[in-house]
Amino acid sequence: MTMDDTAPQATFAEIRRILEDLPGPDTEAGRAAAARQAQLTKPAGALGRLEDLALWLATWQGRHPPVIERPHTAVFAANHGVVARGVSAYPAEVTRQMVQNFIDGGAAVNQLCAIADSDLRVYELALDEPTRDFTTAAAMDEADCARAIAYGMMAVDEGIDVLALGEMGIGNTTSAAALCAGLFGGRAVDWVGRGTGIDDDALARKTAVVEAALEVHGDARGDPFEVLRRLGGYELAAILGAVIAARRARTPVLLDGYACSAAAAVLYALDPHGLDHCQVAHVSAEPGHRRLLERIGKRALLDLDMRLGEASGAVLAIPLLKAACACHQGMATFAEAGVSGPA
Amino acid sequence: MTMDDTAPQATFAEIRRILEDLPGPDTEAGRAAAARQAQLTKPAGALGRLEDLALWLATWQGRHPPVIERPHTAVFAANHGVVARGVSAYPAEVTRQMVQNFIDGGAAVNQLCAIADSDLRVYELALDEPTRDFTTAAAMDEADCARAIAYGMMAVDEGIDVLALGEMGIGNTTSAAALCAGLFGGRAVDWVGRGTGIDDDALARKTAVVEAALEVHGDARGDPFEVLRRLGGYELAAILGAVIAARRARTPVLLDGYACSAAAAVLYALDPHGLDHCQVAHVSAEPGHRRLLERIGKRALLDLDMRLGEASGAVLAIPLLKAACACHQGMATFAEAGVSGPA
Repeated sequence: MTMDDTAPQATFAEIRRILEDLPGPDTEAGRAAAARQAQLTKPAGALGRLEDLALWLATWQGRHPPVIERPHTAVFAANHGVVARGVSAYPAEVTRQMVQNFIDGGAAVNQLCAIADSDLRVYELALDEPTRDFTTAAAMDEADCARAIAYGMMAVDEGIDVLALGEMGIGNTTSAAALCAGLFGGRAVDWVGRGTGIDDDALARKTAVVEAALEVHGDARGDPFEVLRRLGGYELAAILGAVIAARRARTPVLLDGYACSAAAAVLYALDPHGLDHCQVAHVSAEPGHRRLLERIGKRALLDLDMRLGEASGAVLAIPLLKAACACHQGMATFAEAGVSGPA
Repeated sequence: MTMDDTAPQATFAEIRRILEDLPGPDTEAGRAAAARQAQLTKPAGALGRLEDLALWLATWQGRHPPVIERPHTAVFAANHGVVARGVSAYPAEVTRQMVQNFIDGGAAVNQLCAIADSDLRVYELALDEPTRDFTTAAAMDEADCARAIAYGMMAVDEGIDVLALGEMGIGNTTSAAALCAGLFGGRAVDWVGRGTGIDDDALARKTAVVEAALEVHGDARGDPFEVLRRLGGYELAAILGAVIAARRARTPVLLDGYACSAAAAVLYALDPHGLDHCQVAHVSAEPGHRRLLERIGKRALLDLDMRLGEASGAVLAIPLLKAACACHQGMATFAEAGVSGPA
């Protein structure tokens, strides 16, 4: 699917109105889950975060028991003008080549979706029209940025029970670093890392590029949409849209690594509870990600030194959610199993 | 299956002879895996520990590509005389009740095995004959301890491609703490935790019990089999046997939490490379586990605050191994996909 065919027109004002009506937690479903949890044949709390996940799923799916039977993975792809500054180890055409690899089934995310029994859809956002180099201009106009957000909102269909999100975009850890600094402060060096594996020279260039971008766009601080428009990218805007639409549809979200989490963090900057329906699936080896998670108050589910993007970490966490649901629903209670409680 | 029916006679001397002939890594399979890894469509190292797991599986399965198609989960259950000292929140009969729960399919491990598509077998070790209270005597005779080891060795069948190990035994975190202190030094307080969830009074009792055991059996230090015999339990001896038999059969192992890892650590104490074919699947919320992992040089795959035992953490990591194999085997190479390499 490409943005050109189907994306609706939109404005930031329209998207702000959508944010005003997003649903909160379903505390009744959460309470029902907690009540069942307390009866299952295990010491209280012994399944750790699997117990938390079952309650969280109930709360944000708005039903008890929670289920993970139809996971959906969405990967958004776009190109970045800032790549011309020499910030990536790979040329920009790799974005399109990898999209083709996703379509052909040869990428990591394809294999991981097979293991997780998730369907996978790849969303192209005008790969031939990269964003502008944000060291000299705003990356996007409002119309294009809002359209990318609206396009991302379309990734959330009826009947999905969890949405795993990811991205493909050569150069987008540079954009993510600029976005994080723009949203949360700090200097370029705090948020920049080696991305796909750049050497020391490229890292110095990348840091200088982000520093320059912060200089040019410093006046956007305090307005998350404006930070996104100036420093983000189309795939990052689309991820933000998908996170918003998932909240509206009561679909819990698994966020992937640094670029994906930075995109979602725009919603956190607008509302500290905006990401309560999201889990960060893994913490990336890209150092800015750990810093970002501290900033947005999230603890990742997995920590496996991954830094691939393309939703790979998000999809890898789907079996954990399935495990949480399976234990929650399938375990016998103390009464059913005739197991003695604590002495 | 119960030990009484089928377990062979054995001696420590016989088991020591088996240890002398255990196979090492298959470096050729490991090299073949590394060569393929370098060609796959991702930045070098970007799949992090999934890449390490693929190489590790090739190395210890002794084949390239590695496969995870027939995972097997073995849970060993036994009772501990030391429970009479008031060290657990649950009465000893819960061991047998939980074994019945495993058989009936109502425990956490049953649900997790379904998600991981693993078969599950439960091995009872004389549940009506607990080990002796090790504050006053050796927990086991050599004959019984060696027989439990030999019994555990029988859990490794032909055609298993990974073995997930776990235990059920009320009181066995007390035994694990004593075992760790006996193998690696330190005081009781360094190794003792709340297990199934004991209160402060019980924690003080448990610590005193381990301290007393170390006093009585301090002369066993330096002889890992003797430490196991004096401070261990039947299910822990059986886990050690399963780890040994898996090495012999070129079957990689997923170790569960504290008690399971403490049992396996007997082999580490005998040979620092003895656990090279094992991954620790998760780090338990029981604090001694993290300390033990540092001592044996292992980094867990998962860190989810779990502390249930019964192989729950080990089974939860099986999908990670499947994911590692799926990426390793299914991903396209740069040449196949026509993706450009680094600029």
